Amino acid sequence: MKVSCKRENILKALNSLSRVVTTSSTLPILGNVLVKTDQGRMKLSATDLEMGVNFWLGAKIEEEGEVTIPARIFVDYINNNSDENIDIGTDGQVVVVNSDHYSTKINGLAADEFPIIPRIKEEPVFEMMVETLQDAVSKVVFAASTGETNPTLAGVLFRSDKDNLKVVATDSYRLAERVIKLKKVLEKDLSVIVPTKTVAELNRMLSNSMGEVGVYVSDNQIMFRVDDMEIVSRLVEGNYPAYESIMPTGSVTRVVVGTKELLRDTKMAAVFSRETQKIKLMVDKDVGMLKSLSKGQTGENISKMEVEVEGASGEITFNTRYLSDVLAVVDSSKIILEMTDKLKPGLVKPLNDDLYRYIIMPVKD
Amino acid sequence: MKVSCKRENILKALNSLSRVVTTSSTLPILGNVLVKTDQGRMKLSATDLEMGVNFWLGAKIEEEGEVTIPARIFVDYINNNSDENIDIGTDGQVVVVNSDHYSTKINGLAADEFPIIPRIKEEPVFEMMVETLQDAVSKVVFAASTGETNPTLAGVLFRSDKDNLKVVATDSYRLAERVIKLKKVLEKDLSVIVPTKTVAELNRMLSNSMGEVGVYVSDNQIMFRVDDMEIVSRLVEGNYPAYESIMPTGSVTRVVVGTKELLRDTKMAAVFSRETQKIKLMVDKDVGMLKSLSKGQTGENISKMEVEVEGASGEITFNTRYLSDVLAVVDSSKIILEMTDKLKPGLVKPLNDDLYRYIIMPVKD
Repeated sequence: MKVSCKRENILKALNSLSRVVTTSSTLPILGNVLVKTDQGRMKLSATDLEMGVNFWLGAKIEEEGEVTIPARIFVDYINNNSDENIDIGTDGQVVVVNSDHYSTKINGLAADEFPIIPRIKEEPVFEMMVETLQDAVSKVVFAASTGETNPTLAGVLFRSDKDNLKVVATDSYRLAERVIKLKKVLEKDLSVIVPTKTVAELNRMLSNSMGEVGVYVSDNQIMFRVDDMEIVSRLVEGNYPAYESIMPTGSVTRVVVGTKELLRDTKMAAVFSRETQKIKLMVDKDVGMLKSLSKGQTGENISKMEVEVEGASGEITFNTRYLSDVLAVVDSSKIILEMTDKLKPGLVKPLNDDLYRYIIMPVKD
Repeated sequence: MKVSCKRENILKALNSLSRVVTTSSTLPILGNVLVKTDQGRMKLSATDLEMGVNFWLGAKIEEEGEVTIPARIFVDYINNNSDENIDIGTDGQVVVVNSDHYSTKINGLAADEFPIIPRIKEEPVFEMMVETLQDAVSKVVFAASTGETNPTLAGVLFRSDKDNLKVVATDSYRLAERVIKLKKVLEKDLSVIVPTKTVAELNRMLSNSMGEVGVYVSDNQIMFRVDDMEIVSRLVEGNYPAYESIMPTGSVTRVVVGTKELLRDTKMAAVFSRETQKIKLMVDKDVGMLKSLSKGQTGENISKMEVEVEGASGEITFNTRYLSDVLAVVDSSKIILEMTDKLKPGLVKPLNDDLYRYIIMPVKD
């Protein structure tokens, strides 16, 4: 192989790939990036066996070929180099890298050891603006479970329902749902669970992209493609819990409250309830006041905020993190907090946006 | 005690104090900040027994008194609060803190348990501009030893020599010396070793200050005072090594090289010599070239740079960190690298600045 390309393009590719790379003593090749010529361009790939990422970049190709390079040293090399162009060649498994100021040899591994990243050949199931999908995944992915107790919760549900696409995540203590309006009803109903790590990576990929994203689905794989980059991932097997049944219908107390202000008070509560991570929200309809109470070994705190209250007074206790997580991602300056009873789930949604809902299970105060 | 003051002032004080605070299970009071009324102002203090920091701030004092507050929770409380004014009162050892939106109680500890931070009553030994001292300590403190093998090296030497003040640090592998020109010869010769942690804290204090810094010395204590803040520290006992004898006199090879460029190449060398941390510098007089070579398990790299060479060709091998440390703090765009022999110390100094010298012991290549 003998290719030449701009350093800044390799840097961009490596930034996107390097989080997928894993250090595995049993399978050292997973610590490497596959560099391959591909129809007049260079293709860089990384995989952790569950998920693979491919990135194409423009290059002058003098000689076709492929090789794998340890990601850590490749990233460090490209970060410290400041020359404009990088020439990459191979001498067996040794990668010969040259630029104006540097003559470098990096010990690679044979490309044929690199796991195959499957690609989906079918047409996309749907396409949409990058911002639309990014907005949805960024508002739900943090609510997905990371644990192993229930594998289906360690992923994000993408489910079509007429001209809606529902993007849902829950760890059984809180649940986030974002509804995306599709341009048309899908030809075939979609219901897939995508691993949390894939969705987190998708979120980053989309936040660095523009234009349209295509979503491709096969039996057990999903592929997201933008511009010159694609993520391919296995799907999570199993049935997603019937979450609709726990969605509150109606409420006894309804408060409109500033998002930033409530986030600030939730963080303050976390300071004082470090051991229990509890925030007790007390709504007083008569004086239009929301008080949040927290206490622990170090002391106690009461925060006071004037709010608009509809319905009756009420109180509920949440885990501070479950509340602050949602307040950190909501765009609107005010949110609606709805509660029925201190033992029933509470609901947070942005003011004037019915397409996002976030449910939190209460805890004992 | 009952006082009121601006939140931003407390925040500034806590930022300066919080690094001194230590978490000690045997002496929990060291995790607290002492808050005390002091002649119409509030005084906040922290100590780790070796070093103490006092910070004064303006306050409305309704009732004199003192109390200690756990630093971690005080910092978190002040950071999360966004009200303008904070009222601090006491109810026994409970600290009662109020502001517009928050009513808070923090469990404190009795002030009389707080260790006394000694103060030096004598006149300052010298005073100088904050920038001058900060420049000096920032250029040497990183070279001080952190270990326990030789306690005198775990500090920075301040030694007067006629109208010079020499500020010196070494870990025996490299040595940094900054000479400050004094306005007048000191009344009494000065030679003290200040603990590295104190000097690191002094560096931060000075970088946030303006005007003059006064330096006060007693038998076994030193005090640095600016504006509304002072650091008091014990001195390191013992005699500083006679470092002048290892200072190179003259050189065989002398190179003028770009500071940033050499820093970049040193970082690149560190990428490839991760196991050995070695950079081999090779000066070729005939072509006016400095090559740096590094190699390890992952591969090898040669960096090339055009330079001005005086004297003969030569080569020397350094620890990459000892070289990059100095290149990161030098202000001038070019440095002079002098070497005599690959077994003798090399010298780095800024171009056109004879008051700073940095010696590096070579390693085997």
